[in-house]
Amino acid sequence: MRADELFIGIDGGGTGCRARLCAPDGTVLGEGAGGPANLRFGVAEALAAVVAAARAALTTAGLDEAAMARTTAGIGLAGASEPAQAAAARAQPLPFARSAIVTDAGIACLGAHAGGDGGIVIVGTGTIGWARVGEREHRIGGWGYPLSDEGSGAWIGAEAVRRALHAHDGRIDPTPLTRAVLARFSGDPHRIVAWMTGAKPRDFGALAPLVVEAADDPVGAAILREAAAHVDALASRLVALGADRIALAGGLSGPIAPWLCGETRRHLVPARGDALDGAVALARRLAEPDRAGPGAR
Amino acid sequence: MRADELFIGIDGGGTGCRARLCAPDGTVLGEGAGGPANLRFGVAEALAAVVAAARAALTTAGLDEAAMARTTAGIGLAGASEPAQAAAARAQPLPFARSAIVTDAGIACLGAHAGGDGGIVIVGTGTIGWARVGEREHRIGGWGYPLSDEGSGAWIGAEAVRRALHAHDGRIDPTPLTRAVLARFSGDPHRIVAWMTGAKPRDFGALAPLVVEAADDPVGAAILREAAAHVDALASRLVALGADRIALAGGLSGPIAPWLCGETRRHLVPARGDALDGAVALARRLAEPDRAGPGAR
Repeated sequence: MRADELFIGIDGGGTGCRARLCAPDGTVLGEGAGGPANLRFGVAEALAAVVAAARAALTTAGLDEAAMARTTAGIGLAGASEPAQAAAARAQPLPFARSAIVTDAGIACLGAHAGGDGGIVIVGTGTIGWARVGEREHRIGGWGYPLSDEGSGAWIGAEAVRRALHAHDGRIDPTPLTRAVLARFSGDPHRIVAWMTGAKPRDFGALAPLVVEAADDPVGAAILREAAAHVDALASRLVALGADRIALAGGLSGPIAPWLCGETRRHLVPARGDALDGAVALARRLAEPDRAGPGAR
Repeated sequence: MRADELFIGIDGGGTGCRARLCAPDGTVLGEGAGGPANLRFGVAEALAAVVAAARAALTTAGLDEAAMARTTAGIGLAGASEPAQAAAARAQPLPFARSAIVTDAGIACLGAHAGGDGGIVIVGTGTIGWARVGEREHRIGGWGYPLSDEGSGAWIGAEAVRRALHAHDGRIDPTPLTRAVLARFSGDPHRIVAWMTGAKPRDFGALAPLVVEAADDPVGAAILREAAAHVDALASRLVALGADRIALAGGLSGPIAPWLCGETRRHLVPARGDALDGAVALARRLAEPDRAGPGAR
């Protein structure tokens, strides 16, 4: 390790990219942000956002671009769980001294357990379970709505629409929630059909807050109970793989937590840090040659 | 009614279009086929297929194009359940003396009950319940996968993939069915992700036969049992709306029938005719001015 070496952690997601620059002793020197960095929507764009966030962090620290050449970068990116996309990203030149690109779930797990062993279930627009046990990493689910990501914001929003349609044609009794969902479409299911065509998971997920706010509605409660059962299934599998401590993350983890089963709750621990902390930890590992791990170069 | 009046029934779906030409006494004079006729994929193309199928039926009957001017057409089209698409289709000129454009489910229901009251549940790539009770028509479900069409071929195929992913990451025990589904993707869930992006309901439905053939597999049986429960829910609502006799139609109605509940089975009747019979019945109604009904012009 050079005495003037710098470490940067970068957390890149579908809505934006955050970077944190640290000195070798762990002191935070600066932070910065960049645009969306999901490899699914373009490798070049995602890496440009990564570099922009890093540049902003250096500027905050009073450093210029030349400092990138003595910076080790730990980068977690949405979409890096697809091997082809991760390989394409790793093949691109980056201005850092060295870098590793791993999945966003991987850095979240590192951050939650301060680099130690443990599992994480992320409940956001999607759901995924991730664990680090010994030197092995495990991934459960997270293959994308509608074939996976059960219990996620996309799944919760879609379930709300599905049940609103059932209420519309009399298969179930309407409730305040089914009425509220239908009202979003002026009470017209044909508008739902038009909206559904081309809707992205985040569009379905935009309806999840209606369900979260309707936890005392019979349909809302049923959806949250089912969502929690799917999260329980992810956690249970991580525990079976040896991850004894499970952290929750993601925007919907708070509303789902009260619905989780006792067995899941028994293994829950508070996250010790977030994904950005995990990305910094990844960068620091790169400086220990024996522990560089997957995604390094 | 003119003495030389002709009647043509046309059944237009996503894979093709069939036409049947009849004399006033009901004698079949000729049949013909045309290309896909789903309004969702283009109004002009669908109506061109309708006219091509009619022309083919006239040719079979030894008649030329001029005979269209004395032909009354009953037309059922996929996509006509969307009011905007049905209106766009009805605004287009057609070469017939008169015509009515209704939904494919509507003519299937007319055909199943020989123009009388009753309900139908169509279990194909999608699912929909339809009933005619008195002069009123009722529609249940059929708003499209993934927010509707539960129990359909698309739903069954998607469920099979969903559970194959669960088996892949150890959330459930693998079975011959989950192994067969994964094998379609070379055992690689990343291939499922790539396939899912942009997959149409018919692509999901293409996997339904794997499930139907696996009725003695625990995962296959569970999917078919759930699919049948969704079909039961459609039938139950049609019965509640006054449709005492329910027919089944669609390519998956046979495999689903043995899994239906006793209450549904108590109301099941064999279909007296198919959608093409219903389209002819619709054309004949048009010649009785008081009964022309919806979609006529």
